Amino acid sequence: MKVIIVGGVAGGASCAARLRRLDEKAEILMVERGPYVSYANCGLPYHVGGVIPEESSLLVATEQMFRAVFGIEVRTGCEAVAVSPKQKTVDLRDVKTGEVTTERYDKLVLSPGAAPIRPPLPGIDLPGIFSVRTVPDARTIREWLHRGEETKTGMDSYTGQQVVTKPKRAVVVGGGFIGLEMVENFAHLGLEVTLVEKLNQVMPPLDPEMARLVERYLVKHGVNLQLSDGVAGFRQAKDGSLEVLTESGKAHPADVVILAIGVRPETALAKAAGLEIGQRGGIRVDEHMRTSDPDILAVGDAVEVKDYVTGQWTLIPLAGPANRQGRIAADVIAGRDSRYRGTQGTSICKIFEGEIGQTGPSEKLLRQLGDTDFEKVYLYPNSHAGYYPGAKMMAIKVLFRKTSGRLLGAQLLSEDGVAKRVDAFAMAIQMKATVYDLEEAELTYAPPFGSAKDPVNFAGMVAGNLLRGDMPLVHWDGTAGGFLLDVRNPQELAVESVPGALNIPLPQLRARLGELPKDKEIQVICRSAVRAYYATRILIQNGFKAKNISGGMLARSHRAVH
Amino acid sequence: MKVIIVGGVAGGASCAARLRRLDEKAEILMVERGPYVSYANCGLPYHVGGVIPEESSLLVATEQMFRAVFGIEVRTGCEAVAVSPKQKTVDLRDVKTGEVTTERYDKLVLSPGAAPIRPPLPGIDLPGIFSVRTVPDARTIREWLHRGEETKTGMDSYTGQQVVTKPKRAVVVGGGFIGLEMVENFAHLGLEVTLVEKLNQVMPPLDPEMARLVERYLVKHGVNLQLSDGVAGFRQAKDGSLEVLTESGKAHPADVVILAIGVRPETALAKAAGLEIGQRGGIRVDEHMRTSDPDILAVGDAVEVKDYVTGQWTLIPLAGPANRQGRIAADVIAGRDSRYRGTQGTSICKIFEGEIGQTGPSEKLLRQLGDTDFEKVYLYPNSHAGYYPGAKMMAIKVLFRKTSGRLLGAQLLSEDGVAKRVDAFAMAIQMKATVYDLEEAELTYAPPFGSAKDPVNFAGMVAGNLLRGDMPLVHWDGTAGGFLLDVRNPQELAVESVPGALNIPLPQLRARLGELPKDKEIQVICRSAVRAYYATRILIQNGFKAKNISGGMLARSHRAVH
Repeated sequence: MKVIIVGGVAGGASCAARLRRLDEKAEILMVERGPYVSYANCGLPYHVGGVIPEESSLLVATEQMFRAVFGIEVRTGCEAVAVSPKQKTVDLRDVKTGEVTTERYDKLVLSPGAAPIRPPLPGIDLPGIFSVRTVPDARTIREWLHRGEETKTGMDSYTGQQVVTKPKRAVVVGGGFIGLEMVENFAHLGLEVTLVEKLNQVMPPLDPEMARLVERYLVKHGVNLQLSDGVAGFRQAKDGSLEVLTESGKAHPADVVILAIGVRPETALAKAAGLEIGQRGGIRVDEHMRTSDPDILAVGDAVEVKDYVTGQWTLIPLAGPANRQGRIAADVIAGRDSRYRGTQGTSICKIFEGEIGQTGPSEKLLRQLGDTDFEKVYLYPNSHAGYYPGAKMMAIKVLFRKTSGRLLGAQLLSEDGVAKRVDAFAMAIQMKATVYDLEEAELTYAPPFGSAKDPVNFAGMVAGNLLRGDMPLVHWDGTAGGFLLDVRNPQELAVESVPGALNIPLPQLRARLGELPKDKEIQVICRSAVRAYYATRILIQNGFKAKNISGGMLARSHRAVH
Repeated sequence: MKVIIVGGVAGGASCAARLRRLDEKAEILMVERGPYVSYANCGLPYHVGGVIPEESSLLVATEQMFRAVFGIEVRTGCEAVAVSPKQKTVDLRDVKTGEVTTERYDKLVLSPGAAPIRPPLPGIDLPGIFSVRTVPDARTIREWLHRGEETKTGMDSYTGQQVVTKPKRAVVVGGGFIGLEMVENFAHLGLEVTLVEKLNQVMPPLDPEMARLVERYLVKHGVNLQLSDGVAGFRQAKDGSLEVLTESGKAHPADVVILAIGVRPETALAKAAGLEIGQRGGIRVDEHMRTSDPDILAVGDAVEVKDYVTGQWTLIPLAGPANRQGRIAADVIAGRDSRYRGTQGTSICKIFEGEIGQTGPSEKLLRQLGDTDFEKVYLYPNSHAGYYPGAKMMAIKVLFRKTSGRLLGAQLLSEDGVAKRVDAFAMAIQMKATVYDLEEAELTYAPPFGSAKDPVNFAGMVAGNLLRGDMPLVHWDGTAGGFLLDVRNPQELAVESVPGALNIPLPQLRARLGELPKDKEIQVICRSAVRAYYATRILIQNGFKAKNISGGMLARSHRAVH
């Protein structure tokens, strides 16, 4: 059996290595357009930023290792340019020589990845505008960032033009994962950073009110944040530096520009081969990672996957799923009944000291799908016992089924402890847990790591209280017509208060019930909705109609700041 | 309805607060023998060590808060000395005055906790020997540690005796959670620390070969570790300092001694009331936390719980379960059908920079129960992408059902990332996940936080490979009669090699198969069992009988060092 694998990074390399383990006799050829296979593309932003100083650190497994250890033939600098499904052949072009050879296959695996979107804007080919996809990309950006250091001759070795200083101002276009990681790394290098994002939020998988907190955090760290403004083009200024022109008419000066406005599945080869393409623009595969041609499989960022929670086709270009898909494709080629269970979109992103984590669908995604059988809660627990040094507040949003309590999704932001909780939520979603299961979860606790009631338990309890009817909730956008009751202490109100709210500090509530109306919905406010919960319980049991304003003043702080 | 709660810390305080939220009208009286309610006993070692400088930080909720916010009557310095289940009364003794009053109850909740074991050894009442259970305990130890600072008069204000210097040498007796935390905190204060443990391992919930790594870590950090040697008594030396005498005849000098040899459920009150006590010595409760008297409930460290995985009665004195039990007891008193699902023993302990985490039963516990339907794997992945700074090796042991693949337990040690993985394993165990589910788990990945194949995935893959028959395993204690093949590189063998093993580096294996016997079980060695897995696959497919030595040289390093 001869298997050709097109693309030698995450999905392709995983597939090749697994296939060899399952089938010692198969002839395996892995081709990769670029110069390296199995490199750590997730590490590229950190290599640009110097956090990972050595390029060699990014090369997880070399061509030589694939040959020597796995007996896999690897051709780098080799692009698959055509597939003939009937003849079962692939045309391979040597990138350097242009020579095309034709190889026969029994099984073909496509793992071409997704390409950074590079719209045909005016000036997009000016020097200094980069994408971050490959090791050579990172190398080129690093060289560009150091160009000002070579001014002995007064000339830049890169462009041949006169340069004044080394790059000091970076513009990052696009506020997703790679965009934010580039922002952090440029800031780490001491550059002034502007982030331009066409949408009205950074980090598109997050719900906008959660993204607000990320945006405030970026601004706090000195990032010039430009939301709701797309890039219109690029211009070279008289001093040779760049300007990034936006749709609103702004011009942001830049010595280096990163385009990180998303990726597009590389489907040209699949399309030309007549393979089915899904409605989201990725290669369509079944649960065995087989395309519409059963002898051609496809994995990684180029394929559409089923959203594990919503069941909808989607594009989720992440390394973990790509690796697992590669493994499953190898199993299937080796005759095993392995199935990909779908992708739930678990992700995490470091930005300065902050951690942005998510698993499962967002509220906006559910709404787009017309799904209304869900509820949400916000909570703001400490990342670990508040009395142990280093505890940070976490902002957590949890989505769950109104009817069954099944956990749907979670979004978490904090400077500590995000990964630990997202993983617990992620495993819970995979296992179809309910919020009642979260209440009972037995997670690690010692003061440096958590609390006796972990944020995950706490999330389950808040959600469970809601679903059991113990704690009716209202969100800030639904308070119209209600009677606002603020149960915080007067000192807290001095910092920020809600216009029109009556203040009765919680300890006085039982004695002052007479001041409250019996005919109106009383909406209870405190800082984080904990005291408001206590108050709501007191009110309900005394015959009032009362609701807790979800997330309290902390949830109110999710409003836009720009 | 009048509810009396005996014990005002984790379980009792949780129960009281929850009950008030469910029942605004109940009369709730919470009594606590000590001076504080709802204090952070888990923080006490860190307060002794000065990591948590302020005692007030440990007081989570005060007596005043319980009164003002929850309308709960609290009596501190008040001990329950007798219960009359027939009369439904409790006798309460004022600790200061000795006055006894009798209170009637409709429901009684016992949350007395567990007392540090203090065996009647010679000299145990000498000054300078402490347990760590309460805020006053911590205060007394702190004062003792500072006594040498008050030498202006040449006299110690604590004992009235002459002192030379402030305490410099600590002996901690008992190597469990509190013992290790005290070791760390004494070391943090600059004391020389000796740890004396009667068992042949520290951290009794761990399997001994995992404890070996903790022991090596303690020694590396300068701790004088004395295993397999119980304390026989204490003696005051001529200079007023202490000596800890052991069963083997040693005498360890000490200026301060901590007894942390375990805790015993406080059952005197329950026994006197005629309540059923379980075979493990804790108060027997049903899944509703009801004792043998349906109007008396019990929660926390004093009760026996069902092990969630094995189904056996056990004692697991941890704060998280105590809090959840308190909540469930309140639900039950309020007429709800809440049930405690059992305890799975999830725990974590910080020791210097190291993290020791566990969930589910250990191998030795399964063996004690005569359970043989399990397998185990060892693995040593990085805590996050190796190319990103700060990655640490993790040592992981995973136990799972041989027949079904169901996950049973996990033990993890590392200087990074333990809590994140234990929580994922813990949630998986709660949801009855299999190792095949772990293979497919979609956990957070970005280079600072994990790997595209997370250690949890990796554990699932190793276990799955074993159960599917792809990777037969042998453990180091089962290698007798096999043919040892070491597939590492010669440079690695120069550091440590296995006597009698043939060395064929993995890249040469396919070419040198002729050197291997067809009639013997070939047992393959490498550093971490990854290359040995590749080699095993090559050998099996070439008709050899081959097994991977689980965990490789790294698992071999679990051998004792003392």
